[in-house]
Amino acid sequence: MSIISDSPAPILQRLDHQGVVTLTMSSPERFNALSEAMLQALHDAFTEIADDSSVRCVVLAAKGKAFCAGHDLKQMRANPDKAYYQALFARCGEVMQAIVNLSVPVIAKVQGIATAAGCQLVASCDLAVAARSARFAVSGINVGLFCSTPAVALSRNVARKRAMEMLLTGDFISADQAAEWGLINRVAEDDALDEATDALTASICAKSAVAVRTGKAMFARQLAMPLDEAYAFAGETMACNMLAEDVGEGIDAFIAKRPPQWRHR
Amino acid sequence: MSIISDSPAPILQRLDHQGVVTLTMSSPERFNALSEAMLQALHDAFTEIADDSSVRCVVLAAKGKAFCAGHDLKQMRANPDKAYYQALFARCGEVMQAIVNLSVPVIAKVQGIATAAGCQLVASCDLAVAARSARFAVSGINVGLFCSTPAVALSRNVARKRAMEMLLTGDFISADQAAEWGLINRVAEDDALDEATDALTASICAKSAVAVRTGKAMFARQLAMPLDEAYAFAGETMACNMLAEDVGEGIDAFIAKRPPQWRHR
Amino acid sequence: MSIISDSPAPILQRLDHQGVVTLTMSSPERFNALSEAMLQALHDAFTEIADDSSVRCVVLAAKGKAFCAGHDLKQMRANPDKAYYQALFARCGEVMQAIVNLSVPVIAKVQGIATAAGCQLVASCDLAVAARSARFAVSGINVGLFCSTPAVALSRNVARKRAMEMLLTGDFISADQAAEWGLINRVAEDDALDEATDALTASICAKSAVAVRTGKAMFARQLAMPLDEAYAFAGETMACNMLAEDVGEGIDAFIAKRPPQWRHR
Repeated sequence: MSIISDSPAPILQRLDHQGVVTLTMSSPERFNALSEAMLQALHDAFTEIADDSSVRCVVLAAKGKAFCAGHDLKQMRANPDKAYYQALFARCGEVMQAIVNLSVPVIAKVQGIATAAGCQLVASCDLAVAARSARFAVSGINVGLFCSTPAVALSRNVARKRAMEMLLTGDFISADQAAEWGLINRVAEDDALDEATDALTASICAKSAVAVRTGKAMFARQLAMPLDEAYAFAGETMACNMLAEDVGEGIDAFIAKRPPQWRHR
Repeated sequence: MSIISDSPAPILQRLDHQGVVTLTMSSPERFNALSEAMLQALHDAFTEIADDSSVRCVVLAAKGKAFCAGHDLKQMRANPDKAYYQALFARCGEVMQAIVNLSVPVIAKVQGIATAAGCQLVASCDLAVAARSARFAVSGINVGLFCSTPAVALSRNVARKRAMEMLLTGDFISADQAAEWGLINRVAEDDALDEATDALTASICAKSAVAVRTGKAMFARQLAMPLDEAYAFAGETMACNMLAEDVGEGIDAFIAKRPPQWRHR
Repeated sequence: MSIISDSPAPILQRLDHQGVVTLTMSSPERFNALSEAMLQALHDAFTEIADDSSVRCVVLAAKGKAFCAGHDLKQMRANPDKAYYQALFARCGEVMQAIVNLSVPVIAKVQGIATAAGCQLVASCDLAVAARSARFAVSGINVGLFCSTPAVALSRNVARKRAMEMLLTGDFISADQAAEWGLINRVAEDDALDEATDALTASICAKSAVAVRTGKAMFARQLAMPLDEAYAFAGETMACNMLAEDVGEGIDAFIAKRPPQWRHR
């Protein structure tokens, strides 16, 4: 296990295992709040991963009773200054976009509560698995702060009236509700969360690395384009993907009904 | 109770109660059709509310067996003139966008049928609660008139194949189906519709008015932006929101585990 | 029954019946793969239909155990050339957009498997009905080829985390799951697929042809516009639709509670 910080108790732990990087937010006593330090640690971790061709996918996990309770309210209250807030929310937006723009898929592995920017983290990931007892809210409204930046990610995951209800009421939804609405992919029994997450990472790791990276790079980008542009872009992407050695092997293996031997794992 | 018209029987009744404005379409014998007069009354009401800082949220309700049956077909048939139709649909589009652009949330409270532009009204509101017996359709196709303007709102609420099916068949969907598809938020038993609506308005009124107005102003706008612009806009919005007195109080109350005392109710 | 090819065994059969064109992919031994010939046949068929005012709607069906298994992998493997792939995916994108831009609605009638570009075909249709045993996947990832062009259509039909899960895992979803996610409209028992499809075509054929074509022409276009532009466009569209003779008859029939007699069937 490598750690990304020199401090004796890193707030973000990194574990590498066969191409899967697990980043574990490890500030349970503060509900893994997105303090300056946590945002910096996430930013650094994603920057490192972006350049590491050995990484196949990332799991974003957390220690303790909360996945992440959003911004660090005490720290925010201690810095009553507009420039501070602008910099803080800009940094938070950078981290969220770093997930979207990362070269490999990021899977949120959610236990406990995911609130405000914690819920935004889940929404920003490519995939999400949650324990059945997990709960989700964008609860800034309860302290007088509408979850504007979380709304950006949330409203791109769930139907708009559902996003608006969560944002205006601040109420929690269950993991089952989150799955039904499309905010997360899968719900696992609490003691089977590891297993459910491992099933997803194993599925991704069994694929060609070129294909996975191709998909991650094109998905969000094409979604923002008009249909004709999206098709032109996707067609060109797919033609390039066809030239990767892995595809020849993949098709040959498929036709021969044998497992493929990827060059680019 | 104030009324927005001098007529002895106003077609749109306005009731103000503790910051909640209830607008009740009151032309039940015409199924609350969006006649010229009804559109004018809605337009005037939203214009008035836009400038009224005492309003916390709006409930759009209706009297009788229909929530709203859409445009007034007899009136339209009596004016077989392209300029008339252009003006009518332009005015209707203005009213729908007035809901989207209003400074406070608008909740549709739906009983009976909501058809064509009546269904569009529901789709245009921020939130919607319906009685279990309520039904929804975009039924213009049944009289040879594709519900083009309702399609604008509907297709931004539900998945496109579902919208297309409703538009092409003109068939009704139930309240339960509407909730499952995301067109409405909640279904209440018919005799509990008031209660369910009141629960939503009470939740919104318990929040900081600044935060609620901030959210209403940013939500639809950010949704139309590319991701990076949306984050820049939302981050700036949130930094401004942080400077409201209410947030300090909200965070202090949260930390002290006491209810907040909002300045801006 | 007319056929669109001179070959003794046309790979795409065309059957015309009372305004409904049924196009049946008829290469079951190759799982109706989108070979060059099949893409060409589809392209030609949609081009013919585009100019045929007698057509009311199109059913896209298939013969055999598969609806469509996507691109023809053997043919692709036999042409290891970037220009070939670019032309192939460009042609495929044209066919998909021909469905979106066709003057009348296209209904996918799905049995067996719909994979990769076969799933994209389903996503590209306006409506879709599937047999309960039908299954859907974007499985290119299994051969090292991320389904980039299918992703364009899929991600415009289902919530993004669901699309991403299908694209990254290549796993099948059931017809029930597809309906729950909005990829298809209706699930029929296997022996009732004809009946369920006929119910949809009958509903569309009972409508005014002007109204149906108006709707098909405006739906996707308005969805790509900002709200104010969409309303301006839809309002103008609806004003024009009002001038069609059918609408007068439709409204008169509605008011008189009798069935309409459409001029433009």
